[in-house]
Parts: sequence; structure tokens; C-alpha cells
Amino acid sequence: MTQDKQTPIRIGLLGAGTVGSQTARLLVEQREELSHRIGRDIELVGVATLNPDEVNFPWIDKSLLTTDTAGLCTRADIVIELIGGLEPARTFVLTAIESGASVVTANKALLAKFGPELYKAAEEHHVDIYFEAAVGGAIPIVRPLRESLVGDKVTSMLGIVNGTTNYILDEMTTKGLDFDVALKDAQDKGYAEADPTGDIEGYDAANKAAIMATLAFHTNIGIDDVTVEGITAITADDIAAATAEHKVVKLLAVVENSEAGVSARVYPALIDENHPLASVRGSFNAVFVKAEAADDLMFYGRGAGGAPTASAVVGDVVTEARHIAQGCVGPNIPMYKDLPKAPIESSKAAFAVRFLIHDKPGVLAAVAQKFFEQGVSINGVNQDLKPTLNDPGYDGEIQQLRIVTHMCDELTLRNTVAEVCKLDCVTGTPSILRVLN
Amino acid sequence: MTQDKQTPIRIGLLGAGTVGSQTARLLVEQREELSHRIGRDIELVGVATLNPDEVNFPWIDKSLLTTDTAGLCTRADIVIELIGGLEPARTFVLTAIESGASVVTANKALLAKFGPELYKAAEEHHVDIYFEAAVGGAIPIVRPLRESLVGDKVTSMLGIVNGTTNYILDEMTTKGLDFDVALKDAQDKGYAEADPTGDIEGYDAANKAAIMATLAFHTNIGIDDVTVEGITAITADDIAAATAEHKVVKLLAVVENSEAGVSARVYPALIDENHPLASVRGSFNAVFVKAEAADDLMFYGRGAGGAPTASAVVGDVVTEARHIAQGCVGPNIPMYKDLPKAPIESSKAAFAVRFLIHDKPGVLAAVAQKFFEQGVSINGVNQDLKPTLNDPGYDGEIQQLRIVTHMCDELTLRNTVAEVCKLDCVTGTPSILRVLN
Repeated sequence: MTQDKQTPIRIGLLGAGTVGSQTARLLVEQREELSHRIGRDIELVGVATLNPDEVNFPWIDKSLLTTDTAGLCTRADIVIELIGGLEPARTFVLTAIESGASVVTANKALLAKFGPELYKAAEEHHVDIYFEAAVGGAIPIVRPLRESLVGDKVTSMLGIVNGTTNYILDEMTTKGLDFDVALKDAQDKGYAEADPTGDIEGYDAANKAAIMATLAFHTNIGIDDVTVEGITAITADDIAAATAEHKVVKLLAVVENSEAGVSARVYPALIDENHPLASVRGSFNAVFVKAEAADDLMFYGRGAGGAPTASAVVGDVVTEARHIAQGCVGPNIPMYKDLPKAPIESSKAAFAVRFLIHDKPGVLAAVAQKFFEQGVSINGVNQDLKPTLNDPGYDGEIQQLRIVTHMCDELTLRNTVAEVCKLDCVTGTPSILRVLN
Repeated sequence: MTQDKQTPIRIGLLGAGTVGSQTARLLVEQREELSHRIGRDIELVGVATLNPDEVNFPWIDKSLLTTDTAGLCTRADIVIELIGGLEPARTFVLTAIESGASVVTANKALLAKFGPELYKAAEEHHVDIYFEAAVGGAIPIVRPLRESLVGDKVTSMLGIVNGTTNYILDEMTTKGLDFDVALKDAQDKGYAEADPTGDIEGYDAANKAAIMATLAFHTNIGIDDVTVEGITAITADDIAAATAEHKVVKLLAVVENSEAGVSARVYPALIDENHPLASVRGSFNAVFVKAEAADDLMFYGRGAGGAPTASAVVGDVVTEARHIAQGCVGPNIPMYKDLPKAPIESSKAAFAVRFLIHDKPGVLAAVAQKFFEQGVSINGVNQDLKPTLNDPGYDGEIQQLRIVTHMCDELTLRNTVAEVCKLDCVTGTPSILRVLN
């Protein structure tokens, strides 16, 4: 799509939901401001939606609504994809790119799955694909990684990138709620969806981890390269034990570039209450970056919500509109490195494992023997805490046994936990938390 | 400076101090990586320094050293200005721009004083001026303001942007030190300069406030528009009182865009220990941003130091090198608004004022009467705390009287404090801290 310099740059918006409607609002209400900042006028030329009759916002002119999504993709200079999901989003984005339009998207699942295909298509067609809102909502993290830190070497990133799980863990911490209760509460308040699987099992965070790793390490990391654990096994007892040790439990997206290779993982971890990430509360997100020269950085803000996400989307639109006005393109997504993926065997950490045990003599010795046999060194043991759970099949008392290990490799730890769970005196599901140092 | 596409982009570096030497290291050691990310080779073609004999870094080839700074400005495509100060830095930057070179600088004083002149010159010569390192060192804050938040309306920013004062206040807090002792300690450890005036009186933070306000509000705010208070009047007693109220004292750069106009100020303030800025410790910096759509954002990292600052500088160099490779320019610094400057009379806040008083009957009544006469409403009073200071001219006991006001306008508050200080029973220098809500 080319056009002469006098006409406005045409913006096509796919999707008129929570983020889409707020994006339209900013584009329409702030059109004059934005044109100043771009140096050229912009115009929202269409809003594609499946149900035009249901779209009712004072700032969206009814005549802009269309069900012809593919058609809109071919008559815009910038296409904003806010449909979500893999298909038909992928097809529409490719249609836009092939028609010479640049793309702004907030679709983390799309990028984590089809990123390389889309980045390549954009490069071939000399257009840009921007996606600030795909990681950390309103937080500028993609741009700093693509541009500010481009002269540095990022070694690792730790992100609280899912507001739903952070809200749930926060409620469990401040109110002593158990997981199920906190989840129900989050659903009632609209912080968790009716089907919360994607959030609580860590899949949403995993998509963001894949994007973060690709940007940080200039090597392709897709969703299938991310190992994922969610927060469903975490109990109020785990949280209470963490609090007693001046730690908090957070679901982290962790990407690292070490000698063993690149890893991208999502897991719940214990972090010290003085760590900057520990104070990230409720539905806020934050990404902590370690780089060789810059050292520690943290980016904090709203990870979701209509207006905050729209702010990031419109920031991208302005950047891209400037490029179009100048006839240039932004930085591509460099994936010139083909770094090895770190094998799971190379993953080492300290772990806090909580078992539920029958309160009778010899249990600690039996459990400790299993750790000894597997070569996992124990750093601390706590058998004081009474659990809130019971074992219906056992009429004696149930106790918690909490074991914190020294650094050990993860597979061995998991084998050890499996062995311990075979003991008759161990019941329930153990929880396994990494301890961040 | 134009050149054909096969030759490397030429980088001229002015200054070979702490930041300059680390910038050279990144440019030389990571040349291949950077060239990948730019899509074209870059070459450090000269390092200007007053004393070439004293520059001795293995990564800086001796043949690059030159005392001909102006000459280097005319034979580079990108000039990195790390000399600091106003002149000759301004002249060299203008020489570079007029020769068609883009400029990357970390010089906050230069931008806060001559920003508009330099931005205009850059626009006229179709070159860029980038300065990520001028505010918050390694923290990407300039780029997010120039680009990510460009589709949003920033309403205020609060920054801890001076590491020296943050370190001193932190030491006073954690170790109970008085200001002079903490300053001496910071000087011994290299966190404060031999002449610490620029830091402790708030002038360094004021330069950054001017830049922040200009970027955030698209209106020109210079160093002379910033009102400044430093931290020299703060005592260990003030800090102890803050701690008792679960607050911390931070030196803040505060820029706001309200109905009254734009304001840019530097002052020490009490902030709640749960505020994200409260956990910014030691020599770290952070900038907290409030925007209409994005809501709260915070950016955190190292505000100074050779390698961290160099990371930000090289990020700018890479961005600019990409522009040169493509024959385009980055976003200008839009100052299209001519917003009014908020009059000092419009500044309202709650204040915590600490007086030293003679411990005898009637003092509280006399002080309270002055507040009443001036119409300043008192929210809380604390006369329990024993001060660590003495009044040599008085043989009775000295007490602290700490008064927290409701919201009031600042001029009235200052008049009130002046009136109170005229009382015979009041001694020493009062401290005045804003209370952030």
C-alpha cells in the first residue's frame, strides 16, 4: 500500500473487544495529537468484527464496522490485529503483510507459534510487525529489548507476566486463602476467566516467555521450546511457609542464556521479599532483566486491561506511521543466532518441596534416606507446620514436611520426589517450588 | 556525512573517562554482534581526549586517540558526546550536527540548558540526537517516552534519578546515620564526589526533571523552570520519624501536567513503604510514570556507572546506525505545545515539618497558633521524639516537634514555617518534607 504524502495513513483495526474498542478510542479521540507526533495525519478506515450490531461505542462510527476482515487488511497501511488466537489471525496478518501493510498485534500466542514465519514475511515485503502489547501489556518491554538493549548482552530475564496468577497468589498471601477459593474469587471479580486453564497452568506466560527469549537472545524460541508448570498445586500452607521465611511465591517466566544453551521456562518460585519482583502485587506485571553491561533492570506496569494494552498498541501504531511517513522500516527481529537449547538435565536449582506425611515415628528418617540415596543434599527441614489438608484414608494426624535442598539437578529432584511419594507414610500431592537466589 | 553502503558507519567518541572507555569497549568487542543487529558494519574511527597519554585501555587502539575534537566531529557519521558540562560540549555537538553527523549524548546539563537549540539544529540538518543515558543511566526511559507512550497522555512522573542522594538517604535509613556522616561515607566509597553540591542540592536531578518534562509533555521545560530543594537539611531524626510511620524519604524529581500548567520540581518527600519507588535502594534509579491509558508504569535500574551507562549509549548508537543505513531519521523531540508553567502558588501538598523546640510549657500552643493564623490545617503532631541535636545556646532540653499538615499551598506553608522559626522557643533549622499520597 503506497499513497501520496497528503492523504492520511490508513489504519485498519481487526477486533472491537476490550482492547480493540479502547484502541479505537485513542485513535479517534487523540487523532490530532497523534498526527502532531507522527508529522502526518492518520485515519481509522475500518473496524472488522464478526458482529457489527453488537459494537456500540460513541467513538466508533457505525459506517466503519465491517465483517470483511480480509478486505480491510488490503486497504490499510497499518493493520492492528486484536482478534487473538492462531487462526484466522495468522491468515489475516499474512494477508496484510502481503498487501504491503505493516502489522501491530497484541497476539502472544500467534507470535510464540508462528513468529518466525511472520517476521520473515514482513522482511520480505519490507513492512514492519510491532507487538509491544504482546508481553506485559502496557509495559514497554519489547521496544527496550529490540532497541535500547541492542548494544548489550542480555543474560537472563525473569517476568511476572500473567496478572491472573499474580492476583491469585497475592490473594492467597494476603488473605491466607487456599488456591481454589482464591481462583473462585478472581473469577467473581473478573480477574480470571470462566475457563482459567491458560492462565493457571502457565500457558499464557509460556507464550510470553517464548517471545522474550527470541528477542533477548536473537535465536528462535517457540512455544514448544518452553517447559511449563502452573500454580494449581500450591496450597495456603506453601504460602504460609514462604511468608515465615520472608519469601513470596510468584509464577515466573524465566529465560536464560547460559553455557548449556538457551532455556525458557515457566514455574512458580520462592523469591526473597526484598527482590524488586516481590513487591509486584495484584494484577500488575513486571519483567526483570539482567544484561552484561546494563546490569539489573526492571519494567513494571499493567499487564492487561483495555486502556493500558491500547496504550501500547497505539504507541506501536505511531512508530510505524512515522516509518511509513518517512518510507523506511524499523529494526527486524534478528534471529541470526542458532543457539542450542539447554537440555533439561542441565537445569539446576535449589528446591523447596512440601510433603504431607503421617505423623508417626521414623517418617523423617525414611524420607531423608530417599534424598540421600538419590544424592540430593538437604539444606533445611521443617516439620513443625500443621497442614490445613487431611488424608481421609488415615485416622492419625497429618503433618507437613518441608525440605529445602541445596542446588541439584532438576531431573534428580523429580525422581527423588517420586520415590518419596511411594512411601506409605506420604500422602497427597507434594508441591515443588524453585528457590531463587 | 554520506558514504556508500559498503563502508562501515563511522563512530567518533568524545571523552575517554568512565563511560567513554566502557562505550569504546562495547563498540570494539561487540563490533560483529552490533553489525549483525544493524545490518551494516560500524567502526570506531576516533576517540577525542585532552590527554591521550593517560588513556590506556587494551581495547582502544592508541592510533585512534586524538586531541582534535572538532576534527573528529566532522569525520564521523555518529558522534558520541561524553565530555559533559555545557561548553565546549555544546559547540562540539553543534559542529557534529552541522557536519551532518547524528549525535548520541549522555549530557543532561547540556540538554536541560540548550535542548531546544540542539533539537532544532538536528531537525534542520536531518540528523538525530539521542540521549537515553542522560536520564536514569542504563534505564530505558527516554525511548519509552519518545516512542512507546507516544500514543498516550502522560500526566505525571516521579523519579529517583540521582544515585548519590538515594545512596545517602538509604544509608541514613538502614544505619541511622546523620547526613554528614552518610555523605562522608558515600565519598569514601566513591558514590559521592569530592564536591557533592550538584548531587546533594538536587541540581543533577533538576536537569533530569527538565528533560523528563519536555519529553512527557511536548512543551519546552528548561533547567531554569525547575524548582529545586536538596537533602542537606534532612537529619537522622527525620528519617527515624519516617520509619516509625512506615514511610521512607526519597529525593524525587516530580513533573506534572495539571490544569494549572506544567511543573517540574525536585524535592525530598515521604513516600509510603509499599509504593514501588520505596524499594529502590542504594545507587539504583527508578522512574514512575502515570499515563492516562497505560496507568502506572515503573522503570528501574542502574542510574550511573561506566558499563551501565555505556549500554544505553551503545543502544542509541545502534538505533542511529540503523537509521543511517536506511537513510531515514528517528522521531524528533516534539515541543509543539506551549503549555503554561504552573505558578508556584498553585502547588499544593501535605507537608511534614520538623522543628527543634525548647522543652518548656506553652511551646506547642505557640507553634499551633502560628499555623492557625496562617490557615494551615494540622493533620498530626508528634512531640515525643528526642532529637539527636542540641542547641548550645540553651541549657534546657531540646525536643523535636513534628507537624504533619493537611493539603495546603506551599507558599503559605513556607510563610508559616518562617513565622514559627521567629519564636524564641524554636531553634535550629526546620526540615520540610512533602508527603506523597
